[in-house]
Formats: sequence, C-alpha cells, structure tokens
Amino acid sequence: MNSFKIHQQLIKDTHNLLLLNNINILLHKNASIPWIILVPITNKVELFEIPESQQIIIQKMIKQISNYFISEYKTEKMNIAAIGNIVSQLHIHVIGRNAGDACWPNVVWGNEYTFKEYTENQLTQIKMALQQMPHIR
Amino acid sequence: MNSFKIHQQLIKDTHNLLLLNNINILLHKNASIPWIILVPITNKVELFEIPESQQIIIQKMIKQISNYFISEYKTEKMNIAAIGNIVSQLHIHVIGRNAGDACWPNVVWGNEYTFKEYTENQLTQIKMALQQMPHIR
Repeated sequence: MNSFKIHQQLIKDTHNLLLLNNINILLHKNASIPWIILVPITNKVELFEIPESQQIIIQKMIKQISNYFISEYKTEKMNIAAIGNIVSQLHIHVIGRNAGDACWPNVVWGNEYTFKEYTENQLTQIKMALQQMPHIR
Repeated sequence: MNSFKIHQQLIKDTHNLLLLNNINILLHKNASIPWIILVPITNKVELFEIPESQQIIIQKMIKQISNYFISEYKTEKMNIAAIGNIVSQLHIHVIGRNAGDACWPNVVWGNEYTFKEYTENQLTQIKMALQQMPHIR
C-alpha cells in the first residue's frame, strides 16, 4: 500500500517511534499519561476487517506494551480502544492509567489534562524497550 | 467461579440479554446509541490476562455484533474499548456510532446525551438476533 499515510492529526499528536510488522507505533506527545497508538498499514477502518494474522500481532503488541507500562509506570489499569469518530483511519489506543493521574478517572478522549514533554532520553528508552519486546521485533 | 457477580453499576445501566460461552451480553439501556457490553466470567481485569481461547471468542463476538449493528442501524463507525477506570471488572464496550447520533463525535463515556428507552419488542428482537449469530451460539 504505497499510498498509505498516517493521518495528519495523529502525526501532530504523537512521536513516531517505530514501524514494525507493518504497524506504526506512535507515542502520544503528552508524557503525563503513557499512551501508545498503533496504526496498522491498511485502508480498513475497523480492527475486525484486517487479516486475522495482523489482528493477532496487534493483540500481542497490546499485551507487551501493557506489561511494559505496568512494570515501568506502575500502571494500574489499561485503557485499550479503537474509536475513530474523529480520525477514522484505523488506530488502536494503548493507554496506561493510574488512580490520581492527570485525567483520572475520566477517559483521555475529549478531556483536557496537564501537558508534560518527554525528554529525548525518555523517548530513546521507550523506543529501545519496544524494540526488545519479543512480539514486536 | 461461583462467586462471580456482575458489577452493580453495569446491572443498573444495562439490560442483561444473554449468558453465552461464559460471557454475559448486556445491552446499554439508552437506545439512542446501540451499545453492547461483554462481561466475561473472570476475576481478571484486563482482556490480555484471560485465556487466549476466550479472547478469540470475544473478538468473534465483537465482529458479529459489529456486523449486526452495521446492517440493523447503518452504523458507520464502531467504538470498541476496554477501559475500566470506574468499574474495574473486565467489560468490553461494543458501540455502533453514526455521524449525527446523540453523542457524535464525542465518546459516550463521561458524556451526557438524550435518553431513549428500548421497547420490549426491540429487546426481544436484539436478543433473537444475538442468539442466531454463529460465533455467539
């Protein structure tokens, strides 16, 4: 799919970390809440429309990223979602939430909360951690 | 798991339609937006923590329910999510959204929108449709 381009809104909101298994791994720029967005290279808009083999890879990535958030950020509850009301391009949110975080207990979508930048060092560490995940390599 | 009970908040918000494959199928009481909530019988709180065989059944249910919403309500975009910030008991939202629906383009969680009751006849029809789905029976 040569014509595939990540939606402008997603580009604006995220750091583009990696492209692995035909899935773009984006990190939301707001470091207040650990939030990865998976954007598979497809023109389908629903997760159940893409090939099952790709769905399985995405589920494995969700699990690995969740375990990383749990160990790194002491995440208490994951928020996993495919919504797409505003950006219909298929993208899956993998968000680590904690009681008392900047948006708790509200969902992050449509709610404003304190902005915090990632440092270059943090971005490098997250990228390295992702690259070392067995189901992501 | 004899001690399993559906969380009071979920009971309050939904019609309990069916228990199939150890998964409770609840329908949100607000008929403005078609919204099913799947509550597997488990004490785990994350989807990736339950057995893979059960995860696969849930993914198949999501697909069937989505196709039902698309054919019955002309749904344009599905919202699929496991959140659990308020009710941590594992439950998966399967929501059919349309441009211009009562909450569009906002997410349903944490947002108020017009309430509409299901009729008894509608409830019976939805239950029958669910029972006829090949991956739900």
